Amino acid sequence: MVKVKRLVLDVLKPHQPNGLDFACTLAEKCLDCHFKFSVLEVDEQTETIILVVEGEDIRFDIISETINAMGATVHSIDEIEVIGSHATPES
Amino acid sequence: MVKVKRLVLDVLKPHQPNGLDFACTLAEKCLDCHFKFSVLEVDEQTETIILVVEGEDIRFDIISETINAMGATVHSIDEIEVIGSHATPES
Amino acid sequence: MVKVKRLVLDVLKPHQPNGLDFACTLAEKCLDCHFKFSVLEVDEQTETIILVVEGEDIRFDIISETINAMGATVHSIDEIEVIGSHATPES
Amino acid sequence: MVKVKRLVLDVLKPHQPNGLDFACTLAEKCLDCHFKFSVLEVDEQTETIILVVEGEDIRFDIISETINAMGATVHSIDEIEVIGSHATPES
Amino acid sequence: MVKVKRLVLDVLKPHQPNGLDFACTLAEKCLDCHFKFSVLEVDEQTETIILVVEGEDIRFDIISETINAMGATVHSIDEIEVIGSHATPES
Amino acid sequence: MVKVKRLVLDVLKPHQPNGLDFACTLAEKCLDCHFKFSVLEVDEQTETIILVVEGEDIRFDIISETINAMGATVHSIDEIEVIGSHATPES
Amino acid sequence: MVKVKRLVLDVLKPHQPNGLDFACTLAEKCLDCHFKFSVLEVDEQTETIILVVEGEDIRFDIISETINAMGATVHSIDEIEVIGSHATPES
Repeated sequence: MVKVKRLVLDVLKPHQPNGLDFACTLAEKCLDCHFKFSVLEVDEQTETIILVVEGEDIRFDIISETINAMGATVHSIDEIEVIGSHATPES
Repeated sequence: MVKVKRLVLDVLKPHQPNGLDFACTLAEKCLDCHFKFSVLEVDEQTETIILVVEGEDIRFDIISETINAMGATVHSIDEIEVIGSHATPES
Repeated sequence: MVKVKRLVLDVLKPHQPNGLDFACTLAEKCLDCHFKFSVLEVDEQTETIILVVEGEDIRFDIISETINAMGATVHSIDEIEVIGSHATPES
Repeated sequence: MVKVKRLVLDVLKPHQPNGLDFACTLAEKCLDCHFKFSVLEVDEQTETIILVVEGEDIRFDIISETINAMGATVHSIDEIEVIGSHATPES
Repeated sequence: MVKVKRLVLDVLKPHQPNGLDFACTLAEKCLDCHFKFSVLEVDEQTETIILVVEGEDIRFDIISETINAMGATVHSIDEIEVIGSHATPES
Repeated sequence: MVKVKRLVLDVLKPHQPNGLDFACTLAEKCLDCHFKFSVLEVDEQTETIILVVEGEDIRFDIISETINAMGATVHSIDEIEVIGSHATPES
Repeated sequence: MVKVKRLVLDVLKPHQPNGLDFACTLAEKCLDCHFKFSVLEVDEQTETIILVVEGEDIRFDIISETINAMGATVHSIDEIEVIGSHATPES
């Protein structure tokens, strides 16, 4: 069983929702995950942010879907930490 | 339930109230929060400060309102740390 | 109740009293505070120092008064750390 | 008995599978290993990544084979940590 | 009661006594103090050293006197750490 | 009795055996030693590596001999950590 | 009683004995001391090394004598750490 422990995402988002709402919406969907949101660059219509996600078992599909639903896109996945373990999933 | 653990705010404030009164007023309104205030740039009428807020459950609405009530404005939210947990709020 | 935990002060002082006497006088007035005094720049008549004060409950009014009584002035407050807590003061 | 504890690999991979699938496939094959995947450079057809592998007893042959099976190649092994011990293998 | 915990002194000394004798002489006079002596600059007749003194209750008067008695002078006090406490002196 | 605890060696090696085999061969000969192998420079026929060896009692003669037997040479010993103790050897 | 805890020595030595023999000879003479030997510069006939010595009670006279007996010289003592204590020597 593979668990994703950490992701660093480069995300392009519109100015709305603002960073705080953006981060909180993500945290609502990914319980027990820790999100660190930093603004990298601000343009007229968009802003580029670095989103660091840490957790015991990060679900990238949910994160990506939630980001898209807010009109933003994952531009690239810059860092990934995964660990493979013998443990069976606690479904 | 989502909790905001850390915020880094870029704030533009007039010289009065001074930094110490500014920080203490914020701390009065946000009990159990820790504020770190650093002066970034001083102009004739205003100063740009970086305000780092750390706490178990930061209420940005109260912080923003308190900042505005002192004639200052949050120019941008540069960093946000949030965590989603299964715990129910202790209202 | 708000407590000031740390201050970084930019202070302009005359050469007399010297740094050691200056720091000790401050420490006498602010018991249980820790002072770190660093010389930043030395001019003919004055010197600019950075004074870092750490404590459980720093009284800036006493520090400022003591600095003025030695012929020096707080040029600016560069960093402030405060915390708001529910605890009632132990007057 | 020699155990490999850490490898830093410079890997050239096509864009597909994406980094997350790439890392998860590796973790599935090397249970109890920790993988850290960072993008170093992105070209039109390929991307260069740094893959840091940490574990108690890393099997490079399995990692290399898995990387090749995904159409990627280990360009170089930049760092290696090994330890020799008297312990007999727990086959 | 005020205690001096740390001093950083900029000292100009002749080549004799050498650094080791210089430091040991100071340590003999200030028991329980820790001295760190680093050479900053060497000139024909003199050398500039940085002397870091750490202790529970540093007596600068003794240090200064001992330095002078070896033909050297404290050029400046670059850093001072003091703490004020309610404790009465253990004379 | 003197024990060597750490060595940093600058080694020139041919491309074969590759780094992983090179490091594992060393670890087989020096049980209980930890080897960290980093590639510094790659040339057409050779590569320069930095080999950090840590252990409780490193036998440089064995390491040097093993390196030579693989067609490589210790170009220089850049760092050495040794400790002298009263303990008698456990032959 | 004064104890020397740490010395940083700038030493000029001939190429022979090599660094490892040089360091081991020192460690044999100064039991319970830890030596860290780093090569700073290599010239045709000589090499300049930085020798860091750490111990509970370093005897510089023995170190200096041992260095000289190997045809090398202490060029300068760059750092010294000493501590004065009330303890009487355990002769």
